[in-house]
Amino acid sequence: MRNIRIGLIGCGVVGQGIMRLLKENAASIEGRLGGTIEVRRIAAREPRKERGPYVPMHLLTYDPDEVVNDPSVELVVEVAGGVEQTYGYLKRALEAGKSVVTANKALLAARGHELIELAETRGADLYFEAAVAGGVPVIRVLREAFASDRIVAVRGIINGTSNYILSRMKESGSDFAPALAEAQAAGYAEADPTLDVGGGDAAHKLAILATLAYGAKLELSQIATSGIDEVSAVDIRFADRFGFVIKPLAVARALPDNSLDLRVHPALINKKSVLASVNGALNAVYIEGAAVGPCLLSGLGAGALPTAVSVVSDIVDVGRNLHSAAGGRVPQRAFRGDRVTVPRVQDIREHRCRYYLRFLVPDRSGVLGKLASALGNHEVSIEQMVQEGHGSAEPVAVVMLTHPAREGYVRNALREISALDLVTAAPQALRIEDL
Amino acid sequence: MRNIRIGLIGCGVVGQGIMRLLKENAASIEGRLGGTIEVRRIAAREPRKERGPYVPMHLLTYDPDEVVNDPSVELVVEVAGGVEQTYGYLKRALEAGKSVVTANKALLAARGHELIELAETRGADLYFEAAVAGGVPVIRVLREAFASDRIVAVRGIINGTSNYILSRMKESGSDFAPALAEAQAAGYAEADPTLDVGGGDAAHKLAILATLAYGAKLELSQIATSGIDEVSAVDIRFADRFGFVIKPLAVARALPDNSLDLRVHPALINKKSVLASVNGALNAVYIEGAAVGPCLLSGLGAGALPTAVSVVSDIVDVGRNLHSAAGGRVPQRAFRGDRVTVPRVQDIREHRCRYYLRFLVPDRSGVLGKLASALGNHEVSIEQMVQEGHGSAEPVAVVMLTHPAREGYVRNALREISALDLVTAAPQALRIEDL
Repeated sequence: MRNIRIGLIGCGVVGQGIMRLLKENAASIEGRLGGTIEVRRIAAREPRKERGPYVPMHLLTYDPDEVVNDPSVELVVEVAGGVEQTYGYLKRALEAGKSVVTANKALLAARGHELIELAETRGADLYFEAAVAGGVPVIRVLREAFASDRIVAVRGIINGTSNYILSRMKESGSDFAPALAEAQAAGYAEADPTLDVGGGDAAHKLAILATLAYGAKLELSQIATSGIDEVSAVDIRFADRFGFVIKPLAVARALPDNSLDLRVHPALINKKSVLASVNGALNAVYIEGAAVGPCLLSGLGAGALPTAVSVVSDIVDVGRNLHSAAGGRVPQRAFRGDRVTVPRVQDIREHRCRYYLRFLVPDRSGVLGKLASALGNHEVSIEQMVQEGHGSAEPVAVVMLTHPAREGYVRNALREISALDLVTAAPQALRIEDL
Repeated sequence: MRNIRIGLIGCGVVGQGIMRLLKENAASIEGRLGGTIEVRRIAAREPRKERGPYVPMHLLTYDPDEVVNDPSVELVVEVAGGVEQTYGYLKRALEAGKSVVTANKALLAARGHELIELAETRGADLYFEAAVAGGVPVIRVLREAFASDRIVAVRGIINGTSNYILSRMKESGSDFAPALAEAQAAGYAEADPTLDVGGGDAAHKLAILATLAYGAKLELSQIATSGIDEVSAVDIRFADRFGFVIKPLAVARALPDNSLDLRVHPALINKKSVLASVNGALNAVYIEGAAVGPCLLSGLGAGALPTAVSVVSDIVDVGRNLHSAAGGRVPQRAFRGDRVTVPRVQDIREHRCRYYLRFLVPDRSGVLGKLASALGNHEVSIEQMVQEGHGSAEPVAVVMLTHPAREGYVRNALREISALDLVTAAPQALRIEDL
């Protein structure tokens, strides 16, 4: 069969990983695909920089449009990042009937539906296995392996930076700031870590997963997002005492009325649950199908080579479609365009779960009663309670686990409690995820 | 797009699960595939038996050839089991240019290559996701998601019956026979459990996984197979003491000289390893890619609905190929026919690992020295040792963990020890798998 001719936009660590795999595994890829993958042009910000043995200098250009417009390029691979400008390049590629493979979750979350709809009208493919959970093949599994099932819920640890930091905090007992500094030193967190630790990156990925699981067209603003920066060492310690670990979760869940529950936040999960042992920079996605039951996928969520594996496998997959003129063979959003709908998303205040609450209060009699009464006033009932320290002049921590309660009510109760003069700091509230 | 017309051979629990999914998820499947899946004929051993609301009686026949020969059937789905006769039906279907989806691992292990080669010559598809690990999509992942990588090793817990029994033995401290009886009562083991507990079923599945990972054409006899029936409660207890659990493992691993290490056996694995917490009837496959690193997939390895999910997703996948006339789009063995080779398989006596050895010996001085000398004579060195009980008139258990040693040498040492008059029962030897 004929060769597949590709162009690459972006030649940082992932781009170089792609070039390396294409070279090192060329024979095996050819033995699977029945043709070779030929790189025709590579756009990089510094085209004169030496990039090692896998990147032929003569293919490099500064201008991504040279890749897109190269008539011999039939498939554009994008690992450059960026949203608006990159959108333009990929739009022009798709308009020219070329297929696209991308690892760009921010772009997909912001403008993925436009690009995919364009691809659909042109009979081109837009594949993006590397955009969620790096080397973990969750896109393929949701889109194809469970095409026959109804997805009940998808729960994932899909931001490696946040998972690394929470894992380190648990191991060392340290607070957020030093654990972040350590993650930055180890190369697991960026200089500006906001997108990772604030939950934004996980929200991008969750939007993609929810699209695949439910054929849902979402705005990022519909995902209730909070970051791990609000978790303290003391919360991790108390969670442990109650049999929980705190993990950076992303959740997409179908509710009985067909609306969706979409959330990204640090959550207390049972120590014995399958996601509890997913530590360090690992990613994991736990899919619950109505018929297939539970399915866990875990592996490396980042890194040049794991990401490159997903990109190159997508190239092979699209290459097969090019061989058999079967572009659009699998709908990119798992469902055909006319089945992709704008779902109702549950207001987070309607969410119902158990809560972990922590108050800093003076150690004097009557305080617990006031806390319990305020909670009771809002139909929040306490399942377990622990007070640390006794006979202290300093404020002490009181931690409660509630029975399942509505988030709106919990928030109202916390507002009432904050208005009392007895708490000396804003109350902490974390969701408990039962899985 | 047009409908996909299928015929079903076998209408037991899995067949009925398939019919149920096709009915209940018809709208969603149509929204993904762009056409409906139409069942034209069903072969069942008792065609007059009532099979509930999902199986229309008028489609039933006794004769599988009526399914195969029905000119309107373009895809034959086989969930009947059996090897020789079933081979005949599927061969005739493929010869007629029809595609096949099967869950039949015994057939695939025995005659899969013949059927796949036939499918290749006819441009038909033969899909078999349900044949290994039920609802866990390991076939797709090995064949497509990691098409760009080189597989270092595949290690799996792929026999749910064996895993259930060993998990129960660990929980309850019971021996093999009562745990088997319990598994039979709970429906997790067959009346004749030989194929499951003896390792044969896992060997069938491992042959399939090794074919996909390495493009290898294997004989079942090349897989060193032993069953969990040789594990006693006392071994589980000692393993625990050393920080291990005993799991029913299947291993396919590439060795530096490109030969394969293929084994099915109960193995001691570190309690903290990812496979250690895969309990009960769960299946898991742990794939190690040269570039992608570790990837764990776990879920339900059996049961009507999980298995049916894999079958129906295969039907959708083949249906897409039928829509775009792209039969054979993905090579069924991951590699194209001319790349599938007969590998050299390592003789199990060349295998090198740490061993768990248990001896039953009289409690008298000098015995340990004799055991250690016999092992030392064969270059097997002891890393840890524990003797249970002391001052006993009864024989006592002496357990040793060795440093990495060659299996052939270990066997020779055990033969020498068995010939001494000091051991009162055949020594126990189990492999330790470091992962």
